[in-house]
Amino acid sequence: MLDEIEIGCATTNSKYKKRLDCAVVKIPKTSTLSGVFTTNNFKSASVKDCLKKFKKKFNGNKLLVINAGNANAGTGLAGEKDLELLLNSLSSMTGVEIKNILPFSTGVIGERLKIKSLTSAFEECSKNLKKNNFNNLATSIMTTDKKVKISKKVVKIGNKKFSILGVAKGVGMIEPNMATTLSFVFTDLKIAESSLKKIHKNICNETFNSISIDGDQSPSDSSILVATGKNLINSSKLLQTFKKSLEVVFTELSEKLLLDGEGATKLIEIEVSGLKSKTACKEVAKKIANSPLLKTAAYGEDPNWGRILSAAGNTKHKFLAKNVSIKIGQIKVLNKGEIHKKYREALGKKEFKKQRISLAVNLGPSKHCAKVKSSDLTHEYVSINSDYRS
Amino acid sequence: MLDEIEIGCATTNSKYKKRLDCAVVKIPKTSTLSGVFTTNNFKSASVKDCLKKFKKKFNGNKLLVINAGNANAGTGLAGEKDLELLLNSLSSMTGVEIKNILPFSTGVIGERLKIKSLTSAFEECSKNLKKNNFNNLATSIMTTDKKVKISKKVVKIGNKKFSILGVAKGVGMIEPNMATTLSFVFTDLKIAESSLKKIHKNICNETFNSISIDGDQSPSDSSILVATGKNLINSSKLLQTFKKSLEVVFTELSEKLLLDGEGATKLIEIEVSGLKSKTACKEVAKKIANSPLLKTAAYGEDPNWGRILSAAGNTKHKFLAKNVSIKIGQIKVLNKGEIHKKYREALGKKEFKKQRISLAVNLGPSKHCAKVKSSDLTHEYVSINSDYRS
Repeated sequence: MLDEIEIGCATTNSKYKKRLDCAVVKIPKTSTLSGVFTTNNFKSASVKDCLKKFKKKFNGNKLLVINAGNANAGTGLAGEKDLELLLNSLSSMTGVEIKNILPFSTGVIGERLKIKSLTSAFEECSKNLKKNNFNNLATSIMTTDKKVKISKKVVKIGNKKFSILGVAKGVGMIEPNMATTLSFVFTDLKIAESSLKKIHKNICNETFNSISIDGDQSPSDSSILVATGKNLINSSKLLQTFKKSLEVVFTELSEKLLLDGEGATKLIEIEVSGLKSKTACKEVAKKIANSPLLKTAAYGEDPNWGRILSAAGNTKHKFLAKNVSIKIGQIKVLNKGEIHKKYREALGKKEFKKQRISLAVNLGPSKHCAKVKSSDLTHEYVSINSDYRS
Repeated sequence: MLDEIEIGCATTNSKYKKRLDCAVVKIPKTSTLSGVFTTNNFKSASVKDCLKKFKKKFNGNKLLVINAGNANAGTGLAGEKDLELLLNSLSSMTGVEIKNILPFSTGVIGERLKIKSLTSAFEECSKNLKKNNFNNLATSIMTTDKKVKISKKVVKIGNKKFSILGVAKGVGMIEPNMATTLSFVFTDLKIAESSLKKIHKNICNETFNSISIDGDQSPSDSSILVATGKNLINSSKLLQTFKKSLEVVFTELSEKLLLDGEGATKLIEIEVSGLKSKTACKEVAKKIANSPLLKTAAYGEDPNWGRILSAAGNTKHKFLAKNVSIKIGQIKVLNKGEIHKKYREALGKKEFKKQRISLAVNLGPSKHCAKVKSSDLTHEYVSINSDYRS
């Protein structure tokens, strides 16, 4: 399964010593592709190049080429020329047309690429393409990640089994420095490009776009979904089956990102409901998710629910304090604006001692609801991000 | 000077051991008052009470009554009844009508007030009213503040000298727990209430509302401006003179808050210009000010300007990357989207080693401009806010 995908990896021996930090992924011409990219005003040279290429049709074999350690972002026109050089040599090496080569870069912002060592590393990748080389791919794309992030799911359609396999990287989530989010997900089903794009966008919204480690957003965030199969799936029922499995893979990958988040020790799930739209609920949930005070309280295992209340009140979305209810796990803390009679701090504390902390905040009568996941803010986060780049 | 203001302070011997944590400020009936309060959806019982009272006219003597250690926020109707009890006893003790008593509470959210010990502490305050007792007032309102925050300025009008004196508290700025911002500023000039309110609101926007320690916003933030003089100032020129001095006092107080910010070691000034409105510039400046990545970089004295770029790109305000210029202090880093030829990291590092780091980000041709001040994110911030409440 997934035998159609060939992957070569190498190291430039720079940022991460001898660890793999470059990869080339060869995708057969019959595949369909979808890409979701950062909405940051500053986009890296690679993201800009991908966006341009996704506007046109791909044909022939396609390559994903990835380097970790340098984001080639904030480098202006010089950075775009560096990328052009690199893509030219990759095209000569492999015979794949430039318009079919998609570049991805992750790492420090504001440094120029080292073209020479990158070119020879990519040459090594291209010469050593292998099937079933996903573990090495997952390693090659890491920056400050401590763990390799892979998720796999088998989909049964009739008597046949198909695979979905995804790899991802990212630790200072939606974060620009040394820790941009990249994800590459492959399936050996065949899905029409238009369906693939729609499904991909929706799932990204519910998974990668609903997690936050530090509220920062990278100029390099990219997610690629590739379908390599031969027999087209287009019945809406089968697409639903595929979508469900795909969602499991994306959810797993996004939770792996959170739990490997810079310095993270906790996963915090925040459900906000009762405002007049899902967007409003998501904005309040993100405000809570990004509150340094809630994140430090989670780290300290302190069920300091006043911080949830304050963060929820700190957006443009209006609601009445007397309508607000808060639960920590299954424990009722605030009920229609009043402290619940049975609430004792020991009960909240027990929930905050768990690795996965669930918070439910109801702000009114509407049925709308959104979930966001976050991690805690720890001494290690400060250490990682205040240490001088090296 | 400022002899019209009488202040009594006491301790409840609870949260801060024997440190003063309660104050009563007596304001003569001829004074004018202005109040600016939090815009958080959740307002403490005290803030709600003040907002109601400011809608009506004050007459007779007025009292400001302040307690530190408990914010009386998130306590629902029960909290409002507690406050009513407290105000009733204060009115009996002092003979001041309830409608002329303004309460302020700062501290933990979600705990009920201890009425008995508070009542007896306020009684002690009322019996010991003294002139020139501003140092004790500044101490009484502290929570996790390490330093007393007072700022004083003399205004010369003709041959006469007048005073402006302000006290403030707040360390986890715009922060809900144990660290709400309160400020009380007094002058012995006489300013009409309408002018006072207008000046107060504008200056708060440029000072207290343009600083951020952690982007969180408290349900208790309050700023009070009192003018006790006898001879009305209403020439627009004299009002300008007053306004300038007042701005110095508010700026000093807000910078004192930042430098005493929880765990803070640096003051970061961020100027954003070139977007199509001042509001847009301020939103981008706040995004940069609240970026945990920029704040940890400041702590680590790492001139990681890629983090400024990413944060600036992470709002709804659009601009072209090729128009962007960044300066660290007087050092040009990015010039119209390209790394400046003379920029060397050692130059940026020198600027980041200063206690006051200045960043200027120009995003386009417009003249609009906004300044925001912030502090760094440090190990001590995490320690303070993850430690269990005690």
